Amino acid sequence: MKIENPNPIQWHFSDRAQQLQASFIREILKITQRPEIISFAGGLPSPATFPVERMKEAFDKVLTDSGRVALQYGPTDGYAPLREWIADYLSTDGSKIVPEQILMVSGSQQALDLLGKVLIDEGSRVLVETPSYLGALQAFSVYRPEFKSVDTDEHGLVPSSIDAVAQGARLLYSLPNFQNPTGRSLSIERRLELVETCARLGLPLIEDDPYGALSYKGEPKPRMLAMNPDGVIYMGSFSKVLTPGIRLGYVCAPLPLVRRLELAKQAADLHTAQLTQMVVHEVVKDGFLDRHIPTIRTLYGNQCQVMLDALAEHFPADATWTTPEGGMFIWVTLPKQIDALKLLDQAIAARVAFVPGSPFYANEPETNTLRLSFVTVPPERIREGVAVLGKLIKDML
Amino acid sequence: MKIENPNPIQWHFSDRAQQLQASFIREILKITQRPEIISFAGGLPSPATFPVERMKEAFDKVLTDSGRVALQYGPTDGYAPLREWIADYLSTDGSKIVPEQILMVSGSQQALDLLGKVLIDEGSRVLVETPSYLGALQAFSVYRPEFKSVDTDEHGLVPSSIDAVAQGARLLYSLPNFQNPTGRSLSIERRLELVETCARLGLPLIEDDPYGALSYKGEPKPRMLAMNPDGVIYMGSFSKVLTPGIRLGYVCAPLPLVRRLELAKQAADLHTAQLTQMVVHEVVKDGFLDRHIPTIRTLYGNQCQVMLDALAEHFPADATWTTPEGGMFIWVTLPKQIDALKLLDQAIAARVAFVPGSPFYANEPETNTLRLSFVTVPPERIREGVAVLGKLIKDML
Repeated sequence: MKIENPNPIQWHFSDRAQQLQASFIREILKITQRPEIISFAGGLPSPATFPVERMKEAFDKVLTDSGRVALQYGPTDGYAPLREWIADYLSTDGSKIVPEQILMVSGSQQALDLLGKVLIDEGSRVLVETPSYLGALQAFSVYRPEFKSVDTDEHGLVPSSIDAVAQGARLLYSLPNFQNPTGRSLSIERRLELVETCARLGLPLIEDDPYGALSYKGEPKPRMLAMNPDGVIYMGSFSKVLTPGIRLGYVCAPLPLVRRLELAKQAADLHTAQLTQMVVHEVVKDGFLDRHIPTIRTLYGNQCQVMLDALAEHFPADATWTTPEGGMFIWVTLPKQIDALKLLDQAIAARVAFVPGSPFYANEPETNTLRLSFVTVPPERIREGVAVLGKLIKDML
Repeated sequence: MKIENPNPIQWHFSDRAQQLQASFIREILKITQRPEIISFAGGLPSPATFPVERMKEAFDKVLTDSGRVALQYGPTDGYAPLREWIADYLSTDGSKIVPEQILMVSGSQQALDLLGKVLIDEGSRVLVETPSYLGALQAFSVYRPEFKSVDTDEHGLVPSSIDAVAQGARLLYSLPNFQNPTGRSLSIERRLELVETCARLGLPLIEDDPYGALSYKGEPKPRMLAMNPDGVIYMGSFSKVLTPGIRLGYVCAPLPLVRRLELAKQAADLHTAQLTQMVVHEVVKDGFLDRHIPTIRTLYGNQCQVMLDALAEHFPADATWTTPEGGMFIWVTLPKQIDALKLLDQAIAARVAFVPGSPFYANEPETNTLRLSFVTVPPERIREGVAVLGKLIKDML
């Protein structure tokens, strides 16, 4: 029943579609999933931390108790008890968050897409850190903004540099805790200065916080959301504290914005799976995360220290790197003359992988940088891989 | 730690965000979820058809056998064994579909959003049926196309009317099986004529097919995909044959397009939950749907007949309605002078709900139309609700 001799389609893609590029990281990951490779390239949490049994019990309980509700279409804004739990979790003595401010999304990446959709016109100015999270650059790029990079130093984003680029900006995107890719965190003083600067400029401030709970020692620093709930858009995720494969995150935003985001989500995918939301609520409602997260902190903190020690032992004296107090990444700055892309070719030939730093820059990449993740690699393999990299770098100098 | 006297944000939304409107249907649903209301308004499948036990077993098995893989990040294009199963399911003797053509999405609504993102620029012409699926109009609207309605008659879309509006069109969106909202299906002859017309014009043809399997008698008609695999974009879903709350659908498209859609999906939400895809594969791989779908057909077919009988008994002689051979909807055309929106007000006061037809038209709505769904209402309540509507309509005449 096939028709004969159809004209071939001359695909006419949208201007927007021309912006779409495969994530460099996901391309590297395809190469580096071979088991013989020591990969520091991943941004994946360690599967050793996934509470599989607890999840299985919760799926069983929700499907047994309320299967027909869990498997039916649900509301766009999300499962009400989970939104209440999140609002409560985000509330502080000074700043009360209400459930109406919470929109459940299918992972934080969707929050980035919806924010781009609702806030960015072609040519709109968007402020990002130097360097910034690649997934955010990708999500926003679809809407064709003009990116302006905000200066950073060894302590992270420099708030005093915002004024120079703020003219007409639609938003500032920041990742204040254990940033991807640098592992840096903003001090409380910087947070206050950043929030005050944005509030003075009437500039919406996005606080993307997937790693905030993964502090190796001491409590996480206060959220910028609590410093100005009417001006900060907070993004949270269950990917790094529970499991990423279920695709569940949330955005907390001032009401005029969150209603727009909800409409955008309705048009984009109706709603996030009810079952997943009910299961996560079942898992977290009785304080499970308070017991579970410390085990992730210990694992990641130990492996981070192993990598820091190995870097000190094997890397040349004129290389520098960050010393994260949490999260999943170390950022290395090599001597200027080394191109991390070229190093990657040699490293892969020697069965070690990492992510070169260039793709994380919205403007003017620093080609002598790279990102290392230590969370999925056992200590002895971390030492082995860092030694290989150190030798390659010394040979290149 | 709150800052003092922040300037309130003057939200500057994108032009695109101005297009966002709450779905009229979802607004009605909020009113009509009260148990005392007999609601023909829903587009929801009957929860009585959800195979809860089978799903529960599959979640348990997947989490037991491969929990750490299922809960980890996954590939953007989807879980390979499920994509293979779908490619095999869609292949016919004359038209072989390969897994590379399949992109898994978080429900069909996401396929609509991705197609709009990748194919529609502001002002691009988009062809739709008269009337068409509201969710598609909503998803495409975000990208600000110029909608052109293609004529329909009592047998559905009229292919010979396409040429007049095809100039510069980016796509034609069609729903050939038991269409939402009309319940109409295209004959094989019309399908061939539609596919040939689009192929001659080099016009991408979207075949949205969530209800195709729900034929009350006889086998479903051949897919247009099989008639021209290089020119047809096929959208499928597990929502109506398994459960909607898991949010799982797929799109099958020619390779140049599907790779763009994959990149758009990567930027939009990275990937659809691995766990969900592995569970659905576990459920469907051994032919479960062949045993399960007939039970849905029987239930819906019986309730459809009850509603058709009630319409014949209670509605005035000059009202007409479609006689669906499958799916979930009947479309009623009332005498011209009756405004379905006014009827809805009175109906809700009398505790019966439906969806007025106007929102389903991209251009020039026919205000005397309405959509009735019979799948979630038991037979005696169908008779009662239709009797109430019939009396109200007769009173208005």
